[in-house]
Amino acid sequence: MGKTIAEKIFDAHRVGMPFPDTHVLKLDRVFCHEITTPIAITDLMARGMDRVFDPTKIKAVIDHVTPAKDSKTAEQGKILRDWAKRHEIKDFFDIGRNGVCHAIFPEKGFVRPGYTVIMGDSHTCTHGAFGAFAAGVGTTDLEVGILKGVCAFHFPKTIKIVLNGTLQPGVYAKDLILFIIKELTVNGATNMVIEFAGPVIDAMSMESRMTLCNMAIEAGGTCGICYPDMTTVEYLWDFIKDEFSSKEEALKEYSKWVSDEDASYEKVLEYDVTNLEPMVTFGYKPDQVKSVSEMTGTPINQIYIGSCTNGRIEDLRIAASILKGKKISDDVRAIVSPATPAIYSKALKEGLIEIFQDAGFCVTNPTCGACLGMSNGVLANGESCASTTNRNFNGRMGKGGTVHLMSPATAAASAIEGKITNSEIYKA
Amino acid sequence: MGKTIAEKIFDAHRVGMPFPDTHVLKLDRVFCHEITTPIAITDLMARGMDRVFDPTKIKAVIDHVTPAKDSKTAEQGKILRDWAKRHEIKDFFDIGRNGVCHAIFPEKGFVRPGYTVIMGDSHTCTHGAFGAFAAGVGTTDLEVGILKGVCAFHFPKTIKIVLNGTLQPGVYAKDLILFIIKELTVNGATNMVIEFAGPVIDAMSMESRMTLCNMAIEAGGTCGICYPDMTTVEYLWDFIKDEFSSKEEALKEYSKWVSDEDASYEKVLEYDVTNLEPMVTFGYKPDQVKSVSEMTGTPINQIYIGSCTNGRIEDLRIAASILKGKKISDDVRAIVSPATPAIYSKALKEGLIEIFQDAGFCVTNPTCGACLGMSNGVLANGESCASTTNRNFNGRMGKGGTVHLMSPATAAASAIEGKITNSEIYKA
Repeated sequence: MGKTIAEKIFDAHRVGMPFPDTHVLKLDRVFCHEITTPIAITDLMARGMDRVFDPTKIKAVIDHVTPAKDSKTAEQGKILRDWAKRHEIKDFFDIGRNGVCHAIFPEKGFVRPGYTVIMGDSHTCTHGAFGAFAAGVGTTDLEVGILKGVCAFHFPKTIKIVLNGTLQPGVYAKDLILFIIKELTVNGATNMVIEFAGPVIDAMSMESRMTLCNMAIEAGGTCGICYPDMTTVEYLWDFIKDEFSSKEEALKEYSKWVSDEDASYEKVLEYDVTNLEPMVTFGYKPDQVKSVSEMTGTPINQIYIGSCTNGRIEDLRIAASILKGKKISDDVRAIVSPATPAIYSKALKEGLIEIFQDAGFCVTNPTCGACLGMSNGVLANGESCASTTNRNFNGRMGKGGTVHLMSPATAAASAIEGKITNSEIYKA
Repeated sequence: MGKTIAEKIFDAHRVGMPFPDTHVLKLDRVFCHEITTPIAITDLMARGMDRVFDPTKIKAVIDHVTPAKDSKTAEQGKILRDWAKRHEIKDFFDIGRNGVCHAIFPEKGFVRPGYTVIMGDSHTCTHGAFGAFAAGVGTTDLEVGILKGVCAFHFPKTIKIVLNGTLQPGVYAKDLILFIIKELTVNGATNMVIEFAGPVIDAMSMESRMTLCNMAIEAGGTCGICYPDMTTVEYLWDFIKDEFSSKEEALKEYSKWVSDEDASYEKVLEYDVTNLEPMVTFGYKPDQVKSVSEMTGTPINQIYIGSCTNGRIEDLRIAASILKGKKISDDVRAIVSPATPAIYSKALKEGLIEIFQDAGFCVTNPTCGACLGMSNGVLANGESCASTTNRNFNGRMGKGGTVHLMSPATAAASAIEGKITNSEIYKA
């Protein structure tokens, strides 16, 4: 019988099975940020085990609260910085060179098809967009990963989602994943891998695939995953061109990380998304999703465009195309955080920063802060935010605040109107 | 006997003297930000006195922690926002349209020669650059100001500082004010006005005059003050052109706000600053000042360019001219915060943002945060910062951190070298 991509990755990385259904996998990457890793570092130091398995496989960034907002976050950054220096972890991204982890690590070419990746961050599933098995882990797993380069997993069952048809203008990967989470519910994929396939995925950019995989965890999924294809090869080419004689050769090699036709799935769901409308969340769970048309006119106080879900150049381009020459409503404030310095620079050269600035947006440095109410746009009690982030939990962006998850296009249109708005009204 | 400019402003605004040497002045401006004003608002509301004397004379901005870093700062912003809306204070600058108070208020033309200005912020003295009497006040005075439009002051004695000669290339207003504070000591001008005069001031831009007046408080001064001249008129022209038939007429009108030749001073100090070197602070008091050459090589962890002292376009141009085509040292991180959206936009159009970005700076939105360790670049214990801000108090930028105050030029050169450096080494 055939195998899923996740099964193939498990097979290729398994170093032992100490118990039934406990698969110890060799890790290709351990990603670190300044909120969860310092706890692991401090703990390892206290145990006299201040070591790392391989500094070239560990990548670290200060991204959640940057620049530091207080002494606590300054100390967290310092612990990570000192640790990276002490262990010669070359790929450490400090303030000014830093971006949102799930945006900067792919951008630097750190993720490849077939890789195993862990990080102390729930949206690590993003990296599955490259055909990798990437999972968020807790402190204990992170410590073992840092020390030994392995991690123990249960064998993940896979839900396959086949997406047919063509997305309409104004409908994006974010709308698609909100729709899928609504269908699956927030527990629908718990401890499972969500495999995204079909012509809609084939036509998607890597950025959009990352948006899709990023939110797999919101349906409970351990990892979202897309098959590597020529789009993947093109994205990675600058980093892999010395390894392969041609893109076709790279594609051939990576094609081993595609599920077999006769692989066995927990569930296969097939959708035609041609009639899908822009989607938005209501309430406090990511599966509380309605169409934007049902939510049009809902008042908002703040707009946030950014995060590991939707802070990439593609997202900024879409939002800027709607905002160009317009002003945001006087009734709202709006924030945009390009997810990495490279994205910021690209947006600068393309004139997007100027468009945001002229529209009345606050353009911040790259940081995760606002998404989880840690900095950079925390809501006051009773306020609501139209946000391109990934979680609408009660108080996620600030105690007593409400979050409406949506695409950058919908967020941009909502900024202009001062209430939830379908971006299609701004298309010529 | 002649009068000083401060005496003339007092005479023109005095509405009563309830006690000897207690002068109640009518206020032209009450400036507000979200850290100190919400305390006054909440208190006034609790007393059933939620009123304002004149909404057109009150200007408010969210600038200290923006976007909000936590629920507390989000609530502070909300209190100010709701208050501005409730009382129809039109000049309220919310997130995205907001900048550092002492940069954005002058930029909007809110300060004029002869004005009386108060704010719950110690660096309110900045606005004296326009020939105004501008003083930082506590909550009680702020409440009275908001409610009644008056403030009681002791009569300020004046120290006149006459600056002769020509500043050398690489020496700026910041170096000058550090030198002056060293001369006066941190208590040398307590409860006094510091009047800056002489050919060096005459040749200075409004930006540089603001840098100078901004730090009057660091020598204890209630207000720093410069005489209005054609430079002042030029700066304000867009805002005053309907009031005057020509710039000359404006200058004539404003000339009444110049000290008389035979005015009486507490002290007159005269310096030739032709041989002044770039200056920098050591220790934890702003009068602990040495020349950069004495401090060259002192290691630093962070560089900060911004604040009400040195976050204006002139400052960014100077720093960028040094950073152009260069990278900051791998041993440091650097942050630049343009002080207002207009400065940010100007820097964007002039290519300065790109220069900072390419050099490895973190470019943030306009905010005060880092200067007082409230956000946007707080230091960890044991770290030091080369900073263009105004206070080097122990822990000012973060508990256990050290601040070296300096000009944007010295800060930029220090960023490249990773230690305190004279900017002159980067001049062709």
